[in-house]
Amino acid sequence: MEKMPRFAVVLSGCGRADGSEIHESVTALLAIDTMGCTYDCFAPDIEQAMVVNNITSEIVEERRNVLVESGRIARGNIKPLSEINLNEYDCILFPGGLGAITNWCDFQTKGIACDVDTSISNVLENAYKNNIVIGAMCIAPVVVAKVLGKYNIKVTIGNDKQVADVIRETNAIHENTEVTKACIDTKNKIVTTPAYMLANSISEVAKGANAMVKAMIELARQH
Amino acid sequence: MEKMPRFAVVLSGCGRADGSEIHESVTALLAIDTMGCTYDCFAPDIEQAMVVNNITSEIVEERRNVLVESGRIARGNIKPLSEINLNEYDCILFPGGLGAITNWCDFQTKGIACDVDTSISNVLENAYKNNIVIGAMCIAPVVVAKVLGKYNIKVTIGNDKQVADVIRETNAIHENTEVTKACIDTKNKIVTTPAYMLANSISEVAKGANAMVKAMIELARQH
Repeated sequence: MEKMPRFAVVLSGCGRADGSEIHESVTALLAIDTMGCTYDCFAPDIEQAMVVNNITSEIVEERRNVLVESGRIARGNIKPLSEINLNEYDCILFPGGLGAITNWCDFQTKGIACDVDTSISNVLENAYKNNIVIGAMCIAPVVVAKVLGKYNIKVTIGNDKQVADVIRETNAIHENTEVTKACIDTKNKIVTTPAYMLANSISEVAKGANAMVKAMIELARQH
Repeated sequence: MEKMPRFAVVLSGCGRADGSEIHESVTALLAIDTMGCTYDCFAPDIEQAMVVNNITSEIVEERRNVLVESGRIARGNIKPLSEINLNEYDCILFPGGLGAITNWCDFQTKGIACDVDTSISNVLENAYKNNIVIGAMCIAPVVVAKVLGKYNIKVTIGNDKQVADVIRETNAIHENTEVTKACIDTKNKIVTTPAYMLANSISEVAKGANAMVKAMIELARQH
């Protein structure tokens, strides 16, 4: 029987407003496991850019660590992203949530001129060069485009014109995509889905996650 | 067309070690939404008994609020449990996670002699008396038994003999149940599933959540 692809899942904290969006992360993990693949979780071992009350969206005077908070989604089974061995994985997946553009990089404040955390930029460059399938949800494709746009990759963040225009500044191609579908760049092995950029419900997010993971598995098998 | 049951989902924080278990909470929300029902989230507006690093399981010197942290799982759409209007719901669901036995009550330190937060005990008593279907996952059935065991309800926490014996002390009945199944007390309208008391994977948790929510919907329709 053919060996099933192994996934690395990269998190940015725990919660929509200052970390990884929880429904997106969990529906992605569920899709991977349900389709018979394995996963390991990783996150940068850095301080969060901010801590945000996810009810009021207000910044609060606290300090939290991205790896430690991501460990909540991973049930404690998580390692620092700097320690990842990409030889052990066929696919690498980046859920959305505002942590993607505040903790992985400072896109939220600086726009596309943002700086990307080196553990994130290194893993994206190395995954691309090693033919590992890259997946990203919601706003996370902006970070993928920031690092890999120079290779003219194709991604989606749904249909937000302003964000799509910013993505095009990286030389990436943006393709409007429905919430339950995935945008598949076969040549560059990159799969993206809009998730909560468009979703009105958790079941829409799950359908998009399923479409993304299914496409990632198919691309990984073309190695 | 028959009106679909409306769910209240009660959370205890955000993360296995000091709040609601995230996979259990999200797979329950996904099951509710996928089966065409609606949900609203609630949590007690109280300070967490402790804050635990979910990687090391060590208690850390921080203070967090149960409602605010639960808001991460609920994407901000959450209300204090004390404000719930049970007339608006047909079903009420309690995911597991150690928050159930540290924040909703102090079972973790005091055992079955524990004190239960009044917003939790009130909502359980009122739900029972008003014929609302009650669901609970993982360790949360212990709290349901603590409050409603006097009515000789039937619940499961999987097959842990020690916890099952403690549940029997409340006059509740414990029934060993497989991880992908639900224990259904038709008479008392209570449905429970073992989740991470037994699960080895997130897809096992999802199967149990689906079985539980399906049974809750069927019981709600017998009103």
